[in-house]
This record gives sequence, structure tokens and C-alpha cells, in this order.
Amino acid sequence: MAPQLEPFFKQVDELSDSFIERLRKAVAIPSISAQEEHRKDVFKMAQFLASELEALGAEVHQRPLGKQPGKEHLDLPPVVIARYGNDKNKRTILVYGHYDVQPALKEDGWATEPFELTIDEKGRMYGRGSTDDKGPVMGWLNVIEAHKKAGIELPVNLLCCFEGMEEYGSEGLDDFIKAESKNFFKDTDAVCISDNYWLGTEKPCLTYGLRGCNYYSIRVSGPGQDLHSGVFGGSAHEPMTDLVTILSKLVDSQGNIQIPGLMDLVAPLTEEEKSLYPGISYSMQDLHDSLGSETSIHPTKERTLMARWRYPSLSIHGIEGAFSAPGAKTVIPANVTGKFSIRTVPNMESEDVNRLVFDYVRSEFAKLNSKNKLDVWLQHEGKWWVASPKHWNFTAASKAVKQVFGVEPDMTREGGSIPVTLTFEQATGKNVLLLPMGSSTDAAHSINEKLDKRNYIQGTKLLGAYLHYVAEEPINA
Amino acid sequence: MAPQLEPFFKQVDELSDSFIERLRKAVAIPSISAQEEHRKDVFKMAQFLASELEALGAEVHQRPLGKQPGKEHLDLPPVVIARYGNDKNKRTILVYGHYDVQPALKEDGWATEPFELTIDEKGRMYGRGSTDDKGPVMGWLNVIEAHKKAGIELPVNLLCCFEGMEEYGSEGLDDFIKAESKNFFKDTDAVCISDNYWLGTEKPCLTYGLRGCNYYSIRVSGPGQDLHSGVFGGSAHEPMTDLVTILSKLVDSQGNIQIPGLMDLVAPLTEEEKSLYPGISYSMQDLHDSLGSETSIHPTKERTLMARWRYPSLSIHGIEGAFSAPGAKTVIPANVTGKFSIRTVPNMESEDVNRLVFDYVRSEFAKLNSKNKLDVWLQHEGKWWVASPKHWNFTAASKAVKQVFGVEPDMTREGGSIPVTLTFEQATGKNVLLLPMGSSTDAAHSINEKLDKRNYIQGTKLLGAYLHYVAEEPINA
Repeated sequence: MAPQLEPFFKQVDELSDSFIERLRKAVAIPSISAQEEHRKDVFKMAQFLASELEALGAEVHQRPLGKQPGKEHLDLPPVVIARYGNDKNKRTILVYGHYDVQPALKEDGWATEPFELTIDEKGRMYGRGSTDDKGPVMGWLNVIEAHKKAGIELPVNLLCCFEGMEEYGSEGLDDFIKAESKNFFKDTDAVCISDNYWLGTEKPCLTYGLRGCNYYSIRVSGPGQDLHSGVFGGSAHEPMTDLVTILSKLVDSQGNIQIPGLMDLVAPLTEEEKSLYPGISYSMQDLHDSLGSETSIHPTKERTLMARWRYPSLSIHGIEGAFSAPGAKTVIPANVTGKFSIRTVPNMESEDVNRLVFDYVRSEFAKLNSKNKLDVWLQHEGKWWVASPKHWNFTAASKAVKQVFGVEPDMTREGGSIPVTLTFEQATGKNVLLLPMGSSTDAAHSINEKLDKRNYIQGTKLLGAYLHYVAEEPINA
Repeated sequence: MAPQLEPFFKQVDELSDSFIERLRKAVAIPSISAQEEHRKDVFKMAQFLASELEALGAEVHQRPLGKQPGKEHLDLPPVVIARYGNDKNKRTILVYGHYDVQPALKEDGWATEPFELTIDEKGRMYGRGSTDDKGPVMGWLNVIEAHKKAGIELPVNLLCCFEGMEEYGSEGLDDFIKAESKNFFKDTDAVCISDNYWLGTEKPCLTYGLRGCNYYSIRVSGPGQDLHSGVFGGSAHEPMTDLVTILSKLVDSQGNIQIPGLMDLVAPLTEEEKSLYPGISYSMQDLHDSLGSETSIHPTKERTLMARWRYPSLSIHGIEGAFSAPGAKTVIPANVTGKFSIRTVPNMESEDVNRLVFDYVRSEFAKLNSKNKLDVWLQHEGKWWVASPKHWNFTAASKAVKQVFGVEPDMTREGGSIPVTLTFEQATGKNVLLLPMGSSTDAAHSINEKLDKRNYIQGTKLLGAYLHYVAEEPINA
């Protein structure tokens, strides 16, 4: 049976001005985690959040994470964890968000003061953190408040995990989540993260997959110091020549990875998965708009989204140690390090990928017959993530979207990574859902970040409705 | 008949302490042309030089070159020109040197104060500018003084051209030389430049050739801005992929240039030229010492020197616009510019080289079937130079070396360029000789620059003896 959501929705509409006021207060705190001088504001924001949650009747803790590694004069901001409801007969949903933000200065090119929420005639609410991720975090608070004021019981137990270092590498969070999954988070039945975006601007989506990323370095070294190309050109093996040759063997201009065996690791496309793509609200024009050019590889939307979401890609990022400034310099660099990464997908196991990469790079270098020295290594890795979109966590969210927006959500994956997703899945062993609030035009991390009023208010309804459907959804996965 | 040089040599030996004192005074003036705050010292050095020359009885002018282009608040230092002797029955030799120096700070790693000439027990005279190029410039002044003090007439008319911006692009000098070749320098019979180095440490050399340099940029551009490799990897043509592929087609790891037709422009090796190489005092160990590694391409000294002097080479210097810092960044750079240069040799005409490069780069890019955009252009060019080592200017210098050092000089070319050489040749239409004073271990441009006392004092004798042999050498070229 469909939950009775009308009283909740009505209450959200009635409280919408005060919900915007809540977001305005949050945006006004410049909780920039990357900048030392703003660390006090990150703590202030944690306190604001804890106070709001306490006022709503939640059990709240600010959990310290110790000193910041490498900057031991700084305390890491606390993880704000909270519980609202403790009924053994209800499902328990763990929600994640972050209360820190990217840096922002008016002089970067903002049209408005970045830390003053400014609403234009189209209902666009500009401000740093509005969409990433203060809007969604306030959304969960709004859900509790609207239920209280409407006199409706929350249909699930709600656990909150709000961190303050997301924009600076989520320092310390992984270990905290692992530890708390056996303690504060131990009765979690499913996880919901609201920290990504719709594919477009009109249609909500549920996100069930992310690519991983293995980042490699190839160093070629030879002479003891940089050389003058006039004096030595032609008489010594040049590291740059060797490096660009190896880099050129990794991927072709059509994006096809040239490392033997690598594509064999990729899970085949099933008919069922294939059928998800045609209905997705996306067009080649959307791609070209976001590229700022028409330099797309694939002719169709479907193939483009697959290339982004479910196939690996290899990008060459740059070269360290070579001449990189404007102008001209006649240097033979003595040692150069090429950087590239592979976006990984099911079922690429990292150790297999690494082995294929290392073997191939070494064998291509051997072919060069160069006396230079080669090193190749993995700089960092992050695993891909795919959840089952048939799990009750997803079907509940899907019904909530239908209820609030009147459409079926797009079932999406993303090409990038959100590492905390995998951490929650592995630590809790439960299904994780990515349920975005903002749209593709919100400019997170950029100037003029905004969240549309519609996305915030209807988004609050969506989060609440999701909890109601979650409470009623049969176990299916 | 051999000139009677004993009285001159004896006088040089007697004056050697005062010659070292002259060099000490010159080194003490930090005439760094690249640094604004030292411009006054460059002027001071010009005045020092002019005063010394006047005291020796020369006609001296400090010729202004106007404002420094791009830094119009700075006056360019003057060219100090001088004439010593004006006898129509004598040959007139134009000598070039420069009185500005590279930057130097003790904290860069100097063992001694860079602007205090410091002589160690082995007679190594450390100080910025000692070998590049104040030693050789003082050498010419020493020659005049020793002749005066010994009561010997200088056997030639001597013209001096000493500039103060050599270490910063010889701003304004080309036009000056062209203009003065019809005026102050108009009776020049030959030119002698002492601003390079012996191939090793024991045996003097005469240098008769330099490679040219054509410096190119290849820009590949696509998206409107840098992209996130997670979001866009696999769906768009990446400029870096295209660029490294093109760069990899330019030259192989053995130094073989892959541009079709380019090697056909190279003058064939004659038996006569070939015969110059075996006797040259150089070894593979010398190469490995200067490389700081054993990453040489060719197995023999002869082939190595030919690769450096008389064959072209192609070096890839770096990429502008890509990620070049330490660490990891998952960026797809939106537009990247690869820089490479070709060292040119006889008979490579620049326009032919450019045409072959542009055609090849464009055709290789066309093969990629990429929607990105390619631009390729010449950043700058400098022509190669080869003089006839049979000219009386060279045979005179060769006899002077034999007289002073007791050995035949190595006949060398250099892989790099000294642009003023070609300017003098083209402006005067006369033979130009490069007659170095310092040795290969002098560390010009580096920390702990030095000039050996032997090279300075015997070098002064060499410059003087050269003028005597020049005066007697029959016309043969």
C-alpha cells in the first residue's frame, strides 16, 4: 500500500521559508576544510548542525578524529553522528552527507557573495555549499522537523553521519565508519547518500554504480642532470623520447585501451543492462554543452553513457620533470614521469589491472632498446562500485521519485568515484543508494554554485517519501 | 717565417699577477644582465672596460642600444667598441666578447663567494664570469698591455666589440653589428670570438662549425575547458592522447629522426671531413662523465662527435598545459602544446625543414581521425654555421696553438649555437674563428664557475700569438 504522504508534503510546503532560512544560516558559515584559517568555521558548522539536530530531539555526538595528518597543529573537524528513533520494529536507515565546503572568493568571479545565500527570480539559490552538500544535509533535518510539526511519526530509525573533511580527502573517515559499523551504526539496514547530481535538470535519478580509478606513474630516467639539447642532442638516449613513445601505446585517439588483456576483464553488457540506457534523459547536445566542444567519440547517447559509466577509459594527465612553461627552452630533461589513470569497472580486479599495465609498459620499453631506466608504479587506486538497482532500497527510492516528481527516475551510474560509497558498503555489508538532490547545472566546486528552490523543497519531500517507502518495501534483495 | 714571440711571452709571464688582478676586479663587479637590480653593475662593468682600454691607448666608445624591449624603464647596457691601431698596411682583426654574466648566489651551492675571485692550490680561479666571458675579454686587454710594456708593436689593427647583454639574448646587438659593419667595423679582415670551450681539459681547439636550431610547437585542443577524467574519460577525444601519439612519431629511441625527407637535406660526409675525427682528443668516458650516465647511443667517439656536430638531432622538451606537478591529478587537459626542436646542419635550409615538419605532423594527425584541432608552428629558428678551417684565420690560430701549447689543436664543431657568430659572418662577409680560452670543466652558467690560471695566462699568449700569425699568414681563402 502507498504511504499517506499528503500531511508531510503539506507541512514541507508550509515550512519552506524556514527551511530556506536554515540553509541560509548554514551557507553563512564558511566551513572550508582545505583552508587552515577557516578550520574554526568548520567546527562552528559542526556545532550548528549538532544544535539543530538536538533541537529536533535527536541523540547527537560530535566525534573527534584527532589531529590532521601532516598538519598536526590542526584538529580534524568532528564527525557529527545522530540517531532519531530507536524502534526495533522499524528499519534503520543510515544517511551520509558532509558539512564542509570548497573554497570560494567573490573575486574568483562569483556574481554574488559566496557565503550569503542569494535567491534570484527563477528560484536559483546561489551560495557556496548550497548544493554540495549543505542543501541535502539540511534536507534530512527538514524531514525530521516536518514530521514533528505535522505530528507524524518517522517510519524508520534514522542514523546520520555528517563529516567535515569531504572536500579535503575525508581524512580519518574510513576507519571511523569501519569502527562505528559495529557500534553506533550497527543496526543499519541500508545506506542513503545524497551527494551527487541529476544527469540533467528535469529528471531525478538514482545512482547505482561508480567507476574506480587506478592512477599510474611511468618514470624514465637517464642522464645525471638535465642536458643542453645542442650539446647532447643525438648522442644520448633521451628520456622524453622513450616516455612519449610508451605513453602513445596506451590508448588510441578513439579511446580504445591498447593494453592486451585489459578489456577481457570487463563484465559483458547484458540485455537487461542495455535496456536501461535508451530511456535515460540525456542527449549528445548535453554532452557537447558540457564539453564546450563537439569532440565526442561516439555517435549515440547510449554508447556515450556506456563509455562513461560501464567501460574503462584511460587518460594521460601530464608529464612531471619536462619543460612545461610557456615559451621555449632547449632542455633534454634528465628524468620524466608520465601520469595516467584507468577508470575501472566490473569485473576488473585491481591486481589484474596492475599486472597487465606493468607487463605491457615494461615490454614496450624493452622494445625501444634504450639504455635509460624505466620505473612504473601505481600511485593510488580506488575500486569501482555497483549496487543492485532491484534492492528494496532502490525500489523504495524509485517509488518516492514517482510520487514526488511524477516520473520514473533515470537509473544512472557515474564515471567518477565517491570513495565513501564503497566504504559504507564494505563496512556495513548493506545496500547503498545514491539519491541526489541537485541538478547537473548546480556548479558544485565552481563559481556561482547554486541549488534550485524546487530541488531543495521537492528534494526534502523526496527524502521523506523515500523513508516511508523504505519502511513498507518488502525484502527482495 | 715564424714571428718572434719570446719577448711578448716573457712579458705576459712577468705581468701574470697583474693580469689576474685585472680579472679579479672584473669578477668583483656583479654585471648580471638578467636581473634588473644589477643593471647598474652592468653599466659599471662597461665603464671599467672602457677605462682600461683607454688607459692602454685605445680609441673607445660606449654605444647605447636604447631601452630594453618589454622593460622600457631599463636602459640596455652599451656595446663597448674600441680600436687599437689604424695602419692601412696591417690586417684588421675584430674580436668579440661579452662583459655581462649569469646570475650567481652563494646559497646556490657555491663553495666560495661568486663575485670574489678565489684561487685554489691547483690554480683554479673560481668566480662568476671568470671563464664566461670576462677571462677571454681581459685576455685581449692583457695582449695589448704586454705588447706596450715589451715595446712591441701590435702586428694587426685590433677592433673590439664587447657586449653587455649576451646572457639575456644579446638584445639589440644584431642590428648594431649590421650597422657598424659599414662603419666602425668596416675594415675588418677576419673575426675572432673567444666565448666557447675546449672539448676536454688538455688540448686546445679551434671551432669551425655550429648547429642551428629550429624550435617548434604542436598544439592540440579540444574541449572548452579542462575536464574531469571520471566524468568524461572514454566519451571525448583527449588532446593529450593525440599529442603524445604525434610526438612519438618524430624521433625513435636511437635518435633517428622519423620525418620523411629530412635526412636527405644533410650534406654527405666527405672523406676529408671524416679524417678530422679520429685524432680528436675525446673519449666515450668523457661523454659518460658529462652525461652523468652511460646512456650514450653510439659506440664510438667518432660517431658520437658526428652525431653532436654534423648530423641533425630532434629533442622533445616538454608539454605545456598538461598536469606537470608532483602528485596525482585526474584531469583531461583541454589544450596541450608539445615543444620540440631540431638541431640543424649543412645543408638544411630552414624553409625546407619547416615544410617537412609541418607536412608530416599534419599528416600524422590526420591519421588519428580525431575531432580535436591541431596547430603546428615554428617558435624560433637560428641557422647553422660552418667556416672553412683552411682559411688563413684558422691556419694562423692553429700555428699559434702549436707555438704556445706544443700541440696541433683539435678542429671542432659544436652542437649548440652561438648566434652572434653567424651575425658577424653575414654582416662583415669575413671568416669567423671561434678560439676558446677555457676548458670543458669550467662550469660556465653553473655553480663554482672557474678558469684555470694556465688557461688564462697561456690563453693570453695564444690570443697574442694568433695576432702575430694572422699578420703573416698568406691569403689562401
